[in-house]
Amino acid sequence: MKTYIHKVKYYECDRMGITHHSNYIRFMEEARVDLMDQLGYGFERMEADGVVSPVMSVGCNYRKSTTFQDEIAVEVRLAKVSTLKFSFTYVGRTNGQVVFTGESTHCLLEDGKAIDVKQRYPMLFCTTDEQ
Amino acid sequence: MKTYIHKVKYYECDRMGITHHSNYIRFMEEARVDLMDQLGYGFERMEADGVVSPVMSVGCNYRKSTTFQDEIAVEVRLAKVSTLKFSFTYVGRTNGQVVFTGESTHCLLEDGKAIDVKQRYPMLFCTTDEQ
Amino acid sequence: MKTYIHKVKYYECDRMGITHHSNYIRFMEEARVDLMDQLGYGFERMEADGVVSPVMSVGCNYRKSTTFQDEIAVEVRLAKVSTLKFSFTYVGRTNGQVVFTGESTHCLLEDGKAIDVKQRYPMLFCTTDEQ
Amino acid sequence: MKTYIHKVKYYECDRMGITHHSNYIRFMEEARVDLMDQLGYGFERMEADGVVSPVMSVGCNYRKSTTFQDEIAVEVRLAKVSTLKFSFTYVGRTNGQVVFTGESTHCLLEDGKAIDVKQRYPMLFCTTDEQ
Repeated sequence: MKTYIHKVKYYECDRMGITHHSNYIRFMEEARVDLMDQLGYGFERMEADGVVSPVMSVGCNYRKSTTFQDEIAVEVRLAKVSTLKFSFTYVGRTNGQVVFTGESTHCLLEDGKAIDVKQRYPMLFCTTDEQ
Repeated sequence: MKTYIHKVKYYECDRMGITHHSNYIRFMEEARVDLMDQLGYGFERMEADGVVSPVMSVGCNYRKSTTFQDEIAVEVRLAKVSTLKFSFTYVGRTNGQVVFTGESTHCLLEDGKAIDVKQRYPMLFCTTDEQ
Repeated sequence: MKTYIHKVKYYECDRMGITHHSNYIRFMEEARVDLMDQLGYGFERMEADGVVSPVMSVGCNYRKSTTFQDEIAVEVRLAKVSTLKFSFTYVGRTNGQVVFTGESTHCLLEDGKAIDVKQRYPMLFCTTDEQ
Repeated sequence: MKTYIHKVKYYECDRMGITHHSNYIRFMEEARVDLMDQLGYGFERMEADGVVSPVMSVGCNYRKSTTFQDEIAVEVRLAKVSTLKFSFTYVGRTNGQVVFTGESTHCLLEDGKAIDVKQRYPMLFCTTDEQ
């Protein structure tokens, strides 16, 4: 899998001159979308199926600040899959140094109801050990 | 009509320490939404009708910078209405001084097709002179 | 302390029609800023002192989606204070129902170095039990 | 000059399912930053000189909506330079079709005062006809 790169934009930096912490949650989404595209199962394909994937929780540890024009290489890994939810973990690096780590948990909804993720998308969600 | 107030958030300020210019376009939307709510015809009501209101153009002149915690009082006025589009003008003031002026033009779409705005919403769009 | 209210903006909602999850991290900041203002020690006053307050970590659990025009009442509480860092917890409610819970951890930097938070701002940080 | 490409992010789309109009102002900034980098005179270099470049005005015409995953190729051109200000024009295309056009005007400030742009940065600002 190719690592996702986010280059920090001017409008993503705050008065302290650093990337505003809320934006890392967006970089995590970008990297997740990119991973699912590489796996051949993008958000649009799910949406076309009538399936949406809301975020259940998110967490981020900021290790080192980044700023305008920095390139953050975000590694994302499908970490955990259970019947109704799945989690990703993230490590972001700039110039080889870890700048953040994060995780997020998601479910899949069809007609507003949570669905069995492994039954619906076996190709996507059977690649990790069940936990 | 009550003037809409936007208090500038920390995350809306950039590395120069001032409100990022892109955010004023959002403050204009906030003020426009508030005006339509006060007129009794909010976006949700239009959306419930199956009508959406895309922005056709937008413009903003930045007169004076603002920053974190500043209160911007945004006056918005329905300025022009023609068959298929309508425009608003905006003046934003902080402590009585003009900080920006702007304008935006919109249409209404139903099933993807532009509709006659005055025929559809006479109460809303017949309050200004036709131009 | 007065509870902070965030009314969800149109531009904060995504293609699923709900408030994008990254925005809650911003609502938490808004509520934290508001709390510190109410305590008489706002961000600007710290910045005027040459002190900045970076976020060390953030977490958010999404319990129920919200959307355009929803009012989210965010209760924020200074939860933990140690020598070099302090944490807040958050509960957001819409129409009395919990929509999210969150927490964030922060430090204070002066000339790029972490400072003893209780020694520097005793009025602000001695209000909770040391942990 | 290489054309700047912005791939639309999930969080940049709104309830109508399209790229929120405010984001195009940010894409224009991204393309402008990229152009100045290609010209060898990036924002950071100006900031290192103690020069900031606030936006004086911005305008955008939305011709065709875009959405999640669309690639917008943004051509930006330094259009006009006078003593104290300079303007860029923008054309954004997706799959060869124009999706927006825009323009922005800027000045340069040093110690809070507007400076003569061509005198200060002759390499950058003498490439167009004076107007």
